[in-house]
Amino acid sequence: MNLTAFNELPEDTARRELFACCGSEKWASAIMRHFPFSSEKQLVELSSKIWYDQCSESDWRESFTHHPKIGDVKSLTEKFAGKEQAGVAAASTETIEALAKANADYETKNGFIFIVCATGKSADGMLALLKDRLQNTTEEELHIAMGEQQKISIIRFKKMLPDSDFSFLKVSQITTHVLDTSTGIPGKDISIRLKASKDNEWKTIAQGITNFDGRIPDLLPQERNLKPGTYKMVFDTGSYYGKSNTQTFYPKAEIIFNTFDETHYHVPLLVNPFGYSTYRGS
Amino acid sequence: MNLTAFNELPEDTARRELFACCGSEKWASAIMRHFPFSSEKQLVELSSKIWYDQCSESDWRESFTHHPKIGDVKSLTEKFAGKEQAGVAAASTETIEALAKANADYETKNGFIFIVCATGKSADGMLALLKDRLQNTTEEELHIAMGEQQKISIIRFKKMLPDSDFSFLKVSQITTHVLDTSTGIPGKDISIRLKASKDNEWKTIAQGITNFDGRIPDLLPQERNLKPGTYKMVFDTGSYYGKSNTQTFYPKAEIIFNTFDETHYHVPLLVNPFGYSTYRGS
Amino acid sequence: MNLTAFNELPEDTARRELFACCGSEKWASAIMRHFPFSSEKQLVELSSKIWYDQCSESDWRESFTHHPKIGDVKSLTEKFAGKEQAGVAAASTETIEALAKANADYETKNGFIFIVCATGKSADGMLALLKDRLQNTTEEELHIAMGEQQKISIIRFKKMLPDSDFSFLKVSQITTHVLDTSTGIPGKDISIRLKASKDNEWKTIAQGITNFDGRIPDLLPQERNLKPGTYKMVFDTGSYYGKSNTQTFYPKAEIIFNTFDETHYHVPLLVNPFGYSTYRGS
Amino acid sequence: MNLTAFNELPEDTARRELFACCGSEKWASAIMRHFPFSSEKQLVELSSKIWYDQCSESDWRESFTHHPKIGDVKSLTEKFAGKEQAGVAAASTETIEALAKANADYETKNGFIFIVCATGKSADGMLALLKDRLQNTTEEELHIAMGEQQKISIIRFKKMLPDSDFSFLKVSQITTHVLDTSTGIPGKDISIRLKASKDNEWKTIAQGITNFDGRIPDLLPQERNLKPGTYKMVFDTGSYYGKSNTQTFYPKAEIIFNTFDETHYHVPLLVNPFGYSTYRGS
Repeated sequence: MNLTAFNELPEDTARRELFACCGSEKWASAIMRHFPFSSEKQLVELSSKIWYDQCSESDWRESFTHHPKIGDVKSLTEKFAGKEQAGVAAASTETIEALAKANADYETKNGFIFIVCATGKSADGMLALLKDRLQNTTEEELHIAMGEQQKISIIRFKKMLPDSDFSFLKVSQITTHVLDTSTGIPGKDISIRLKASKDNEWKTIAQGITNFDGRIPDLLPQERNLKPGTYKMVFDTGSYYGKSNTQTFYPKAEIIFNTFDETHYHVPLLVNPFGYSTYRGS
Repeated sequence: MNLTAFNELPEDTARRELFACCGSEKWASAIMRHFPFSSEKQLVELSSKIWYDQCSESDWRESFTHHPKIGDVKSLTEKFAGKEQAGVAAASTETIEALAKANADYETKNGFIFIVCATGKSADGMLALLKDRLQNTTEEELHIAMGEQQKISIIRFKKMLPDSDFSFLKVSQITTHVLDTSTGIPGKDISIRLKASKDNEWKTIAQGITNFDGRIPDLLPQERNLKPGTYKMVFDTGSYYGKSNTQTFYPKAEIIFNTFDETHYHVPLLVNPFGYSTYRGS
Repeated sequence: MNLTAFNELPEDTARRELFACCGSEKWASAIMRHFPFSSEKQLVELSSKIWYDQCSESDWRESFTHHPKIGDVKSLTEKFAGKEQAGVAAASTETIEALAKANADYETKNGFIFIVCATGKSADGMLALLKDRLQNTTEEELHIAMGEQQKISIIRFKKMLPDSDFSFLKVSQITTHVLDTSTGIPGKDISIRLKASKDNEWKTIAQGITNFDGRIPDLLPQERNLKPGTYKMVFDTGSYYGKSNTQTFYPKAEIIFNTFDETHYHVPLLVNPFGYSTYRGS
Repeated sequence: MNLTAFNELPEDTARRELFACCGSEKWASAIMRHFPFSSEKQLVELSSKIWYDQCSESDWRESFTHHPKIGDVKSLTEKFAGKEQAGVAAASTETIEALAKANADYETKNGFIFIVCATGKSADGMLALLKDRLQNTTEEELHIAMGEQQKISIIRFKKMLPDSDFSFLKVSQITTHVLDTSTGIPGKDISIRLKASKDNEWKTIAQGITNFDGRIPDLLPQERNLKPGTYKMVFDTGSYYGKSNTQTFYPKAEIIFNTFDETHYHVPLLVNPFGYSTYRGS
């Protein structure tokens, strides 16, 4: 199916398809007001705007309840509902059990299941991220999880419309790149939090772990542009060096930066145990 | 008078002299328990330890009340009680009036007068610092002010014992140096806050403004050594570049660092509008 | 035509086609010894190896004579023989005349015409590069020009085999990226020389000018891998800052670096008027 | 003796004293034209100007012949002629023998003995420096040695006038500081060459090895100010990391910088195995 074919579906069928992408009644109703869609780009942009600006906590929580519960040992070891969880399957029993335990802890703590866009993540990578996210407040997790939901929605749009062209989608508006200049190789498996200021406090709004190339290409959902303002990126350099028992001067590297508009911002970190640099990249 | 002569004074005279250095009954009694003193170094170290570790909020507030009130226009334009306020006298009427206003605001907000070790500070520099400190919480100001009191105590020890040798005194345990690599000259008049973590929140414990050479030699009182731990230094780079209408990517540069022992730590900042570096200096 | 069709050509036709890509008898004969070719990759690799390792000065000079002479005003203002010179056409009369003059100077100085892979270069960009290359010795130019010839050969292979897949071709083995951290934007139009050590002297072996993104994607021909060793990259930072009348501490930034194998090396420069950084990138 | 007493000496006595500081007839005659001297500063400045600007190769070589020959095993193990060689005495037999061998090699190669201002140098440090200087051309060594002679002259002026005040003497006009940000400590025992451009070639004009704090306080003689121009500082980072078998991307770090006047220039290097930074310090 491509977008043209989708636009010709009966409205209730189309609505059902969209609800399967993001299980919020409010979101589905609001996006259907624009049906039929003029382009794939419009679909993604509408999804983002409605999700971030018109929906609120109860809508986000509703969508979380429509996710397949994949956090128990049985589900985690079986094949997963969607290909977006690929990569978890090949995990060791220990990892699966630790994941199941952490998923349960997460739900107990926050009142909703752990939502993550699993694409490209190994079971170990997901476990590291989950443990990391367990340190956040429920308010922070609500925002992180709804961002993950939007990433999942886009993946589901693509699966729903396999014959459509989504090549317009670019990387996250905010990107980073960690290079360890003491070894000359990218800083991988580093936890990074993106924070925004709310009521004079920094709250995590997105979170990820650097890949083998020191990057997190999907820190923000595609087509999600932050309002111009002041943001903070926190790199967990202490844990990174701790893994190799390397003493470091910096338990964290916190970079506070301004965005002046909704264009792309690249905020790299050159790090070594006793020094670091940052700059606006391109 | 040198220390030998001081040690021969009757105890109540010696106590009175010390109370004139730091107007806290508890501090004066505690330090007199060690009278006579074995060296100038012992005197300064005892002062620091008692002031930080044995005294508490009420003692600190008591000492603040024994300072000459120099925040009103009349006092500010007259000569000041002690030479440690030198530099303020030559100020313009506007600065004096702004200083008087800010002093009054400070006392209203915090319930005690503005305490600062004025040595080497111009009226304009003091005004900038005062405005900056007005942004702190009263709890933070209490700690900053008691640190300033300890710096003042040391200056008064030196005046009390003009024939003694205080050359053992070194610079602040924590130092910094700001260089602006877009101009090749030191970053002067930059506000810097040193913070410690308390109950999971960062609280300012010392504050200063960089001099013409980009340094703050007295960020901490001499002989004051922080417990090994994690500290944060915040550089107000946004205001610095704002003064020259230079757009910057960084409203603040926040450096979180570990101290492993009580030796000296140098935490420099190389800054330019769209990039900065830090490292452990020597 | 694709490679399969090419392989079915009579040998002398195939040879003639290849000679049109690189006008050296020795090169054409040597490469034809491998005819028919097993893949496009083999063709490009053979071309590179034969050109660099088996051919020598006389062969390189021979190939230069088979280039269309496009350095005079008439040719420069007309359409150019091949699309690899696209971009020059739209130039001003002044630029065309300056280009013609510089082309003549170049030929007088070096004894062969100015060879450059013009793809993506404007007339002004080409003029800047030409003036820059006029500063090199003839020995250096011989090596730079033969590298440019190899880039041209690859472009001609692609035109000769429009139905073949050349997507395996990657960027230059040595890349760079200049970011100006005083402005937060890439350093464009910066002349960069790559040098190798020969008889204890540094000789330029490749040269280019950074594009709008601060990069030179074709510093070396594709599939050309330098022998592991020590190389130097020279950035003309003095001219770069000179254009905006910005005083700089650094007339040049010279980076000497080791390559340990034939993989890709990224050597970025973060520059501002009074400071710079480099590191091994990824 | 202080300068006043010196000025009252008979001219031939004064001349003899000065010749003992720097054994060149031309230099001694030229400086005596200004006798008596108005200040210690004038004496040092005159010495520098005459030595660098009026004297030439034959004068420099003459002065080298008047140095005690301390390069043989016997002399090296005995006490040395002047205190400026202090530190060498405590060396191991191996070091002494290696020093003697290198001294002989040096004299054979260059035609004059190895001249170095030995103050504060251990035998091992001196040996490292000597081996390093053996790599220079004789022309370079002539200039380095005459600079060392000027440092020695200043030390001898101080010994000749023990009651004079030489506190006006500042550090070298060009200084550096190496910090290794992979370890957080200064980069010590790093060989550094300062070069000037002559006939389009870089020639070493001063050379030293960083001390425990990563500095070379006497890279240039005191009161010697270079003409504003372009200079190069070369840090032997390859040997530095080689000592700890640490792979590095940088066999050398070469910093080319401009001086705009005769004031002090600080050119630091922040280095780690795969990255480095430099900036104009203060």
